[in-house]
Parts: sequence; structure tokens; C-alpha cells
Amino acid sequence: MEKHRVEAFSDGVFAVAITLLIFNIVQPHVGDGQLFRALRDQWPGYASYAVSFLVIGIIWVNHHGTFRRIGKVDRPLLFFNLLLLMTVVFIPFPTGLMATYIQSGENSHIAAAVYSITMTLMGVAFGTIWGYAAYHPDLLAPDVDRELARASVPRFVLGTVIYVFTIGIAFISAALCLIVHAIIALYYVFDQTAAAEMKGEAAFDPLLTTTAEQTD
Amino acid sequence: MEKHRVEAFSDGVFAVAITLLIFNIVQPHVGDGQLFRALRDQWPGYASYAVSFLVIGIIWVNHHGTFRRIGKVDRPLLFFNLLLLMTVVFIPFPTGLMATYIQSGENSHIAAAVYSITMTLMGVAFGTIWGYAAYHPDLLAPDVDRELARASVPRFVLGTVIYVFTIGIAFISAALCLIVHAIIALYYVFDQTAAAEMKGEAAFDPLLTTTAEQTD
Amino acid sequence: MEKHRVEAFSDGVFAVAITLLIFNIVQPHVGDGQLFRALRDQWPGYASYAVSFLVIGIIWVNHHGTFRRIGKVDRPLLFFNLLLLMTVVFIPFPTGLMATYIQSGENSHIAAAVYSITMTLMGVAFGTIWGYAAYHPDLLAPDVDRELARASVPRFVLGTVIYVFTIGIAFISAALCLIVHAIIALYYVFDQTAAAEMKGEAAFDPLLTTTAEQTD
Amino acid sequence: MEKHRVEAFSDGVFAVAITLLIFNIVQPHVGDGQLFRALRDQWPGYASYAVSFLVIGIIWVNHHGTFRRIGKVDRPLLFFNLLLLMTVVFIPFPTGLMATYIQSGENSHIAAAVYSITMTLMGVAFGTIWGYAAYHPDLLAPDVDRELARASVPRFVLGTVIYVFTIGIAFISAALCLIVHAIIALYYVFDQTAAAEMKGEAAFDPLLTTTAEQTD
Repeated sequence: MEKHRVEAFSDGVFAVAITLLIFNIVQPHVGDGQLFRALRDQWPGYASYAVSFLVIGIIWVNHHGTFRRIGKVDRPLLFFNLLLLMTVVFIPFPTGLMATYIQSGENSHIAAAVYSITMTLMGVAFGTIWGYAAYHPDLLAPDVDRELARASVPRFVLGTVIYVFTIGIAFISAALCLIVHAIIALYYVFDQTAAAEMKGEAAFDPLLTTTAEQTD
Repeated sequence: MEKHRVEAFSDGVFAVAITLLIFNIVQPHVGDGQLFRALRDQWPGYASYAVSFLVIGIIWVNHHGTFRRIGKVDRPLLFFNLLLLMTVVFIPFPTGLMATYIQSGENSHIAAAVYSITMTLMGVAFGTIWGYAAYHPDLLAPDVDRELARASVPRFVLGTVIYVFTIGIAFISAALCLIVHAIIALYYVFDQTAAAEMKGEAAFDPLLTTTAEQTD
Repeated sequence: MEKHRVEAFSDGVFAVAITLLIFNIVQPHVGDGQLFRALRDQWPGYASYAVSFLVIGIIWVNHHGTFRRIGKVDRPLLFFNLLLLMTVVFIPFPTGLMATYIQSGENSHIAAAVYSITMTLMGVAFGTIWGYAAYHPDLLAPDVDRELARASVPRFVLGTVIYVFTIGIAFISAALCLIVHAIIALYYVFDQTAAAEMKGEAAFDPLLTTTAEQTD
Repeated sequence: MEKHRVEAFSDGVFAVAITLLIFNIVQPHVGDGQLFRALRDQWPGYASYAVSFLVIGIIWVNHHGTFRRIGKVDRPLLFFNLLLLMTVVFIPFPTGLMATYIQSGENSHIAAAVYSITMTLMGVAFGTIWGYAAYHPDLLAPDVDRELARASVPRFVLGTVIYVFTIGIAFISAALCLIVHAIIALYYVFDQTAAAEMKGEAAFDPLLTTTAEQTD
């Protein structure tokens, strides 16, 4: 299986999954003069749409960062990638739960917990991909430092712990939990780059696998 | 992140979003002999389908026009592109509102306003992409004139104002508002080309970023 | 706009539209012991799914045949291609009508007529693409015979007439109409090749633009 | 029709079909405090999602394995590939049936039988592709041994028999049937590779067309 085909297929899945998020924003069916209120009241739908859109977008970015460092794809790696995609395609479901239940009582915590658990599983699948590649040096791209790759794995494991924490936050407040996921996503967009640029190297971030662009 | 991957992913999102528009045309469930009437009565569904299809199609065309002038993609640009895609994927939602409410009273104006606001946000996201690129000349493609690129930004800002006007039109008539959006889209398909050919240059249009094809 | 991007975007739209057809097969919700009967009774859903799948598949094949003969894409061609895609993405809607109404009385004829009208519009959009290209020789690929291209246009026009006939067949029998569409699709898969091979040339079929593979 | 276009289109269809599986997991609408129970009770939805995701993923992998051995695509092969895609796009439907009926009585067997029949048809379509290619040596890639290709066809036929057996298992237990499909999918991911590596050759598996990676 050529690497670029795995990337192209994964890209397709990412593109479809991110677009299906729009189905979580329900078309209201209301009497005349009530549309504004109905649209306003479903703000959790827009909020969870925006956060999940950003989240899947960032996972897509990190997926490329990771596969740029992988030179060959074998069967187990293909399987781990399928597991990652399985969690990504699942994201619209907890996004819909958040949109529906974020303002309800006990249900809001369950919805947020399912959201955070999905992200945790995504983090585990992502970590497995990189961990497997790092310990099978023949799968890495020629320009990747084998030592650095292996050294980055514990930081990966540590990173997924943040997602585990968001499961706890879900039981404090579902809205806060969504905000935290938005912050984590934004952090991956911006801070990582700065940090890596300062160090002047291709930094593997601890949570996912964002890599700063070197001169290429 | 290589530029062509961003384009490929964006293309995928555009293709899915444009195809999902069909779900806004509802399958009528009526007794025998009433299907013709039921299909005829949901003409707003066909009209908003056609306009939104054209609109997303044109945004896709302009997206390519813009990225042809961009040589490198950095993290902020990647983020702005995600924001643009977030507004494009959102379009099926106000399209559905238009299909449902264009003939109702007060609701029709709300539906049209949401449609126009979505387009305004899309225009802002598109303007941000080009504005950011124009002021970061190292991101532009080598053959792009840095002076012309920067000079085109105010016209961009001016252009988005037209979308703001359509928010006002929404409160006059939702049907008129949809027609105006259709005209704007058609303008981008045809007139821009003619204008640019007359000037013999690659013209940046003021609203989006349609560029006329030079000899290539 | 580079030709290959138009093809890639169109391919994406074809792939999504053909896959969305599955949504026209309704999940039955029935009491225990009644699933077999429920599944059997919705045979029109499977039949229209199969026919529309084949139809979109063939349009996709012909789309490639046409664009292989086109060397450059200008704005009007881009617009005509959007119109074609607009009819292709529409196909799941009449497919759903067929699935629901093919066994009902008067409604069945309306459903079949909408199906045939959609195909007619698709044929017109396809004919416009080829007609426009044939009369703008600078848009044709270098290896395409300009005379032959122009000569093939009337056959195109003639071909679309067959779809107009299926509108008439819709008012005789919806089931017969669906069968005719299946036969037209199968004809495009198989017969055209044989005919073209016999003539030893790249034959443009009269209806769409199936082209036989020459030695390449 | 160039081979790589057929592959790209098929990839797109696979990516959309695998992502649509998420729609089989229903958003529960329950009163406060009942979401956990509601989510827990729809475990058949998650189970059938996971199995079908894996199954489509593996078919995609095998599709590439097959097309790597095919050098040219003619009309009949294009048609057989459309038939295969038609069965793949169908998979979300029986997946939804499994999710709804796996715990019910008589209906569970019908749902599982439809699932197994879909897989059988998929296997037949896949076998037809390879059988047709093996008996038309001019369609095979230059590096494929014609003798070995033809010799692998009977094993293909034999392989599809396993899917026929799962139709029988459906009438014993729907849950067992789903487990067997999961095992078959996992077998294709892992065991085949090991077996082929041992033999030091590109082994055609008996069921689908998994091929072990040789040194490439």
C-alpha cells in the first residue's frame, strides 16, 4: 500500500466527516415570527459545530504532519490508521449530543463526557500510529531522526492525558468542557508553531503530532 | 503543510458541501394525485438549491484563483482557510431555511438575513486569507506582483460590503435577496472575465478573488 | 482554471452524489417477524438505487471521455460544467420519488416524469459542454480533429431527444420508464464500445459523449 | 479510461460510504437523567458501526491490491467495478438494520442475513473483477505472472463461499454473525500478511484480493 494513497483516502474521510457536522444544526420548524428566537436558542448547535470543525481540521493537519515523517505503511499501520479514522468519523455523533444536551442537567455531563471520551480514543489511536512508527524505524521517512522520534513517544502518551482530564471537566460543566476543547484546538494551531520556531526544530507536540514547518 | 494538500482537502470539502445541498429538497409524502402540486409548491427548494449550488461553485473557483497566487501556506493561513471552509459548509443550513421560509411572513426575512450573514462571513474569511497573504509577501507565489497584491486588498474589503447590503435586502424581500445572490454569483462567472480581458491583466475582483486567466 | 482541477472537483461531486443514493433506501421500523416482508415490499427502492447508481456511474465515465478531448477550460465552460453537476447532484431526489411512488397510481407518472426531466436536463447540460467546446476549437485538446468534433454535435442534440421520449414513457408506466433508463445506461457501457471498435475510431455517441478507447 | 482515475473515483466512493456509517448511530432524544442509559442501550449501533467501518476499510485496501495488478481498464471492467461500488455503498443500509434489529427475535436473523448477502454480493463482484482481469491477460500489469493470476481465480470462488456460510450463521445468531464478519475482516488485515511473508511471495488470498507487499 503506497503511503500517498493512505493519505488521499484519509483526506477524503476527513473532508466528508467535517462537512457532515452541518447536519447537527437542526432546521427549526416554527410558526411565523418565531424563527429568530428558534435560531437563537439553538446556539449550542453553532458552538459545537464550530469547535468540532476546528478539532477535525486540526486533526487533519496533524495527520499530515505525522505521515510526512512516515516513509512506508505496513498492514498494522494501515489498521491503526483505520482506527483513527473510525474515531474521527465518530465525532459528528458526540457533537450532536453536545448540541442537544449542553443546556440540560445531568444529560449535559453525559454528552460532554462522550465528547471527551471520543477525543481520548482519537488521541490513543493517534499515539498508537506514531508509537508504532517510532519503534519500527524502517517505516520512518529517511530524513527523520530515529532517536528523536522514539524520544517523542512518551510526550505523546503524556499528551493524551489532557484529553482524559477533559472527561473530568465534563462532569463539572459541559459548556466549560467544550471551551477547553476549543482552546486545545487553538493551541495546536498557533502556539506549537511559535514554540517550534523558537527551538528552531521540528517539534513534536505532546498531544497529537503537530510539527512545525522547517525550511522546505 | 504543502499548499497542494490544502487545496485538495478544500476541494473535497467543497465537493461534499455542494452535494449535500440536495438534502434541502424534501421528499414529499402525499396521497395519490397530489404529487405534482406538492412538487410545484416547493419551488423555493429548487430555487435556493440552484442559487446555493452556483454560489458554492463560484467560491470554489475563486478559492483556486486565490491559492494559485499563494506559494506557501503557514499556520495562520491554514487557520483562516479552515474558517472559510466553516462558512462554506454552513451554507446548506441557511439554504434550507430559505427553502422552508421564503414564502412565510416575518420568518422569510430572518431566513434571508441568515443567508446573507453567512455570505458576509464567507466574504470576511476570504478577505482575511488574501489580506494576510498580501501582507506576508513571502507567502505569495513568485510571479505575483507584491504591489498589486497589496493594492487589491482595499477592493476586497469594499467588496464584502455588497454582502452586508444583502442583509438589508433580506428585510425588504427574501425572494429579492435570493435573486441578488444569484446575480452576484453570475457576475463573478462572466463579467469579471470580460473586464479583466479588456484590461489585459489578471484582475482581482473586489468581492472575492476571481482572477481572469492570463495566457498560461 | 486548470482542467485537471475541474475534473478532480467533478469527480468528488460524482462520488458523493452516487453514494448519497443509499439514503433513498429507507430503514424500516416494524414489529418482530415483519422485517422480511417490509424489506421485500420496498423493492422499488433497490431498483431505483441500482438504476441511478448505474446512470451516475455512466455519466461520470462520459464526463471523463469529454474532458479528455478538452484541452483548456474557460469561464463559460466552467459554468456549463457547474450546470451539469447541478443536474447530477439532483438525481438522488427523483430517485427517491421513484422509490416512494413507482407503485402508486397517478403519482407514479409524476415521479417518473421528474426522473426523465432530470435526465433530459443532464443531457442538455452535457450537450452544451460539448457543443461549446466543439465551436471553440482553441479549447479542444491538440489531438482532437476539429471537423469531427463539430460534426458530432448534431448527433448529441439528437441523442438528448431519447431522454425527451422517456418523459412520454413516464406517463405510460413508471416501472417501464425506469427499465428504459437502465437499458440506456447499459447501452452506454457496452454497445458503444463494440460499435466504435468496429469502426476503428473514437466514436462520439449521440446521447452523451462516450468515447471508445483508442490505442493509448 | 485511465486506471488511476478509476482508482481515484473508487477511493472517493469508499471514503464517503465509510463516513456515512455514522448516520446509523441515532441521536437519542430522552428526558434528563436518561441519556447514559439510552446511549448504553444502543450498543448494537456502535458494534455494527465498528465492524462495517473495518469491513469497508479492508475492501478499500483489497481494491488497491487488485488494481495494482491491473494495468488497463476496459468497459466491462469499469462496469464490474461499478457493481462492486454499488455493493459497498449499500453496506450502510444492512449496518443500520443490524443496529436496529440485532437484539430482536426473528427480525435479527433477517437483518443479519441481509448483511451477509450484501457481503456475498460484494465478494462476487470482487471475484468477477479479478476473474475477468485474469482471463484477459492484456489487462494485467506487466509484472503480473499470467499463470499465477489465472490459478488464483478458483481460490477466489472458494473464498466467496465463506460469505455464503455467514448467511447460514445469520439464522443461528445475528450477534455471532456480526462477530464472524469482524473476524474475517481482522483476518484480512493481519494473517494474510504473515502467510504471504512466510511464503516470500505476493499471495492472493482466497476471499478477496489482499496481497502481501513485496519489496517495492
